[in-house]
Amino acid sequence: MMQPKPVPTPDPLDLEAFRRNAHALVDWVTDYLAGLGARPVREPVEPGEVRAKLPEDAPELPEPFDAVLADLDRVVVPGLTHWQHPGWFAFFPAQTSPPAVLGELAAAGIGVQGMLWATSPASTELESHVLDWLVDLLDVPQSWKTTGPGGGVLQAGASTATHTAMVVARELCRERTGAPAEKMVAYTSNQAHSSLEKGAKLTGFGHIRLLDVDADFAVRPAALTEAIEADRRDGLVPAFLGSNVGTTGTAAVDPLRELGEIARAEQMWHHVDAAYGGSAMICEEFRHHHDGLELVDSYTFNPHKWLATNLECSVMWVADRRPLIDTLSVVPPYLRNPASESGQVIDYRDWHAPLGRPFRALKLWFVLRSFGAEGLRRMIRSHVGWARGLADRIDGNPRLERIAPVHFALVSFVHRDGNEATDALAADINADGRFYVTPSEIDGRRFVRISVGSTWTTKDDVDALWDLIEASA
Amino acid sequence: MMQPKPVPTPDPLDLEAFRRNAHALVDWVTDYLAGLGARPVREPVEPGEVRAKLPEDAPELPEPFDAVLADLDRVVVPGLTHWQHPGWFAFFPAQTSPPAVLGELAAAGIGVQGMLWATSPASTELESHVLDWLVDLLDVPQSWKTTGPGGGVLQAGASTATHTAMVVARELCRERTGAPAEKMVAYTSNQAHSSLEKGAKLTGFGHIRLLDVDADFAVRPAALTEAIEADRRDGLVPAFLGSNVGTTGTAAVDPLRELGEIARAEQMWHHVDAAYGGSAMICEEFRHHHDGLELVDSYTFNPHKWLATNLECSVMWVADRRPLIDTLSVVPPYLRNPASESGQVIDYRDWHAPLGRPFRALKLWFVLRSFGAEGLRRMIRSHVGWARGLADRIDGNPRLERIAPVHFALVSFVHRDGNEATDALAADINADGRFYVTPSEIDGRRFVRISVGSTWTTKDDVDALWDLIEASA
Repeated sequence: MMQPKPVPTPDPLDLEAFRRNAHALVDWVTDYLAGLGARPVREPVEPGEVRAKLPEDAPELPEPFDAVLADLDRVVVPGLTHWQHPGWFAFFPAQTSPPAVLGELAAAGIGVQGMLWATSPASTELESHVLDWLVDLLDVPQSWKTTGPGGGVLQAGASTATHTAMVVARELCRERTGAPAEKMVAYTSNQAHSSLEKGAKLTGFGHIRLLDVDADFAVRPAALTEAIEADRRDGLVPAFLGSNVGTTGTAAVDPLRELGEIARAEQMWHHVDAAYGGSAMICEEFRHHHDGLELVDSYTFNPHKWLATNLECSVMWVADRRPLIDTLSVVPPYLRNPASESGQVIDYRDWHAPLGRPFRALKLWFVLRSFGAEGLRRMIRSHVGWARGLADRIDGNPRLERIAPVHFALVSFVHRDGNEATDALAADINADGRFYVTPSEIDGRRFVRISVGSTWTTKDDVDALWDLIEASA
Repeated sequence: MMQPKPVPTPDPLDLEAFRRNAHALVDWVTDYLAGLGARPVREPVEPGEVRAKLPEDAPELPEPFDAVLADLDRVVVPGLTHWQHPGWFAFFPAQTSPPAVLGELAAAGIGVQGMLWATSPASTELESHVLDWLVDLLDVPQSWKTTGPGGGVLQAGASTATHTAMVVARELCRERTGAPAEKMVAYTSNQAHSSLEKGAKLTGFGHIRLLDVDADFAVRPAALTEAIEADRRDGLVPAFLGSNVGTTGTAAVDPLRELGEIARAEQMWHHVDAAYGGSAMICEEFRHHHDGLELVDSYTFNPHKWLATNLECSVMWVADRRPLIDTLSVVPPYLRNPASESGQVIDYRDWHAPLGRPFRALKLWFVLRSFGAEGLRRMIRSHVGWARGLADRIDGNPRLERIAPVHFALVSFVHRDGNEATDALAADINADGRFYVTPSEIDGRRFVRISVGSTWTTKDDVDALWDLIEASA
């Protein structure tokens, strides 16, 4: 008689082996983070180099975890750009922190899928609760709480939140005007994040207007009024306005109140992309940038940028949840359940495009409790203070010129000798290996973008960066 | 003189504290998984019960991790529906496994954001490589490899992949016909997942046709032809066909070749939603369901359903990557870089709607190596075998009637006494506490859906479930 095949070893489901392997990986992760400062921010690697280290075929039989762990050092780390490096001044930060990593581990281990309240009540209720906490911490309108007419939901990212808002705007505009999407117009700053343009494309808006900005790169309300008038003359229909609190190029802030009044008069959906700037609002001294929030229909910011929480974690608030749910609710029989039908619970599947959802609120909860609001304010204020110090030094250097105000912790500047000198300066900084900054361009002018905000950056790192800038300039 | 404020304690950035806390959490996760079988699948919890345990305001000062960890037991676990429970037979599985949890921990600790090749080459190259491995493991067309004209990308979920495919379909249709989205039609089975309908809404398709199915719940090709003819007469434009390999209701499989030929003749984009069924294709005995894949433009399946990989992890393949990238590429100055401009690398930001992306390939790589292809085949075959055994027992019971073939590991059946008896049976099973099954409905007929596929389910669990069914029926 045939014997049943033995379970292959090592058995990937052996929980005691998991315990040992996880302990080993915890030590690896701790040592990785502790050792980051000694590595170059960007590992030198050519296209194809990582793949060349991998076997052509997937393994047929189980490999021991030691081999996998060893390959983190052999294959993965030498192919990384280290976003958590203390010398990370590029793009915006994608912050993680020890409490957030713990939250990710807990969520992965628990492994629930909170598409409905009923499919894990704690997932839904913790999410609602923590996002209501943030309403208070950021002092946004109380009506945005889930206990009011609005509510918060965790989206994968601000791109997704913005796209979702656009779809709701399109449906409301269609109901109101009967216009096809091809006739609808979305408006935003010519400084807006690429996700506005991408979102408009995904949504099928026929037109997007990238509006003129003032000297501080904030949208001129007159530019919006003029664009609307021209579009109306052409038989088009304004449907969506995207305002910005912290643009990607220079962290500019649009005048929310003036733009919001225009949007309201035109019955457009008014969405705020505060992906970067929103986290700063945990400190009251930045909240003047929020004037006019009562004229906003939806708002998004990313704790995964600057609130110490791992990707993916983006907050989306709506002032009124009904149009969102009306647009996105599709209920097949297998999702029907008594709790949903009671109307007493939130089913987050109706608040975003995907159905399935991981337990993202857990890491945000871990972060808020482990830092405390005061710990997060301290972090934000440190970054902003260091960025302003850097700006002062730039202002004091005759070869350099700042091109935008430092509202938050992003400093944008040029070399006065022109584009070539600016690009050479950025290249010098990045060639050093200790730091990574982003070269960019605005109105044909090349500039250097320094975003202070890695979890692990210290004042010493910013000082050392300045020394290098001064020497290179 | 003022002294600087001391860092609050506990310091959330203390790495040695992280090491200790993470070790404690590893033990907690291991014990949670080991103890799951002794808990009810669904904790008894009323709406609002979880929130009532949480303080009204966020903490101002840092809390020790011990307090957070204790609240996993006090607040979180008693509010969970345990998707990883061995008695999980509801919906589809959302599988995790020890190697995948390790992969999540590693990705969270490394914390890179792979929107561009340049922002972490290992993230992009590992993803391409592992998805190319899967082309071989599932024996889908070789041209779907990233080394060919197509390629694979990890999406958050099948909903997202399907929506992305629809947007590409809409843009291609618009270019080809000039029709507005309102005139376009998407076609799929009346058994398709709700994400098809939701995706069509998000995309702005004016029409979706939910096609008639045969006795096995597979789309009748004639139904597609008839629908197209009627729509053409009405001046509408066929734009998208969604075929299914494993529908949500009964895991039905549509005839890909016949439908694909019609789609091709109509120049429609042909997308396959194999969210559930795709994983089974790692075993050759299921691949007859794949006949006709060369007539497919895009395909999605979820390792986070049935390939032992944590949420979120959904594979999307395209036969030709150019229309996908042409549709989704928006390149602002701050994302330009020499590697992208060389054309030698993949920038996955152009392959999906979001910009930012976590390092999802890591967990899939951990899983493929830790199980080996053979370990994954063994798991799939166990689940399918147990499901067929259950089906045989149902077929042998005069009170029960199976309503669909068992192509994979989903068994759908009714009580012969009618809807009330069927619902009562499902309620009995779920009231027991050891198991969770999904009551659903098809053509007005209530049925019980049993999806075998939890990572931790054993034959004994399936036998015990049968004993309960038999006793309750």
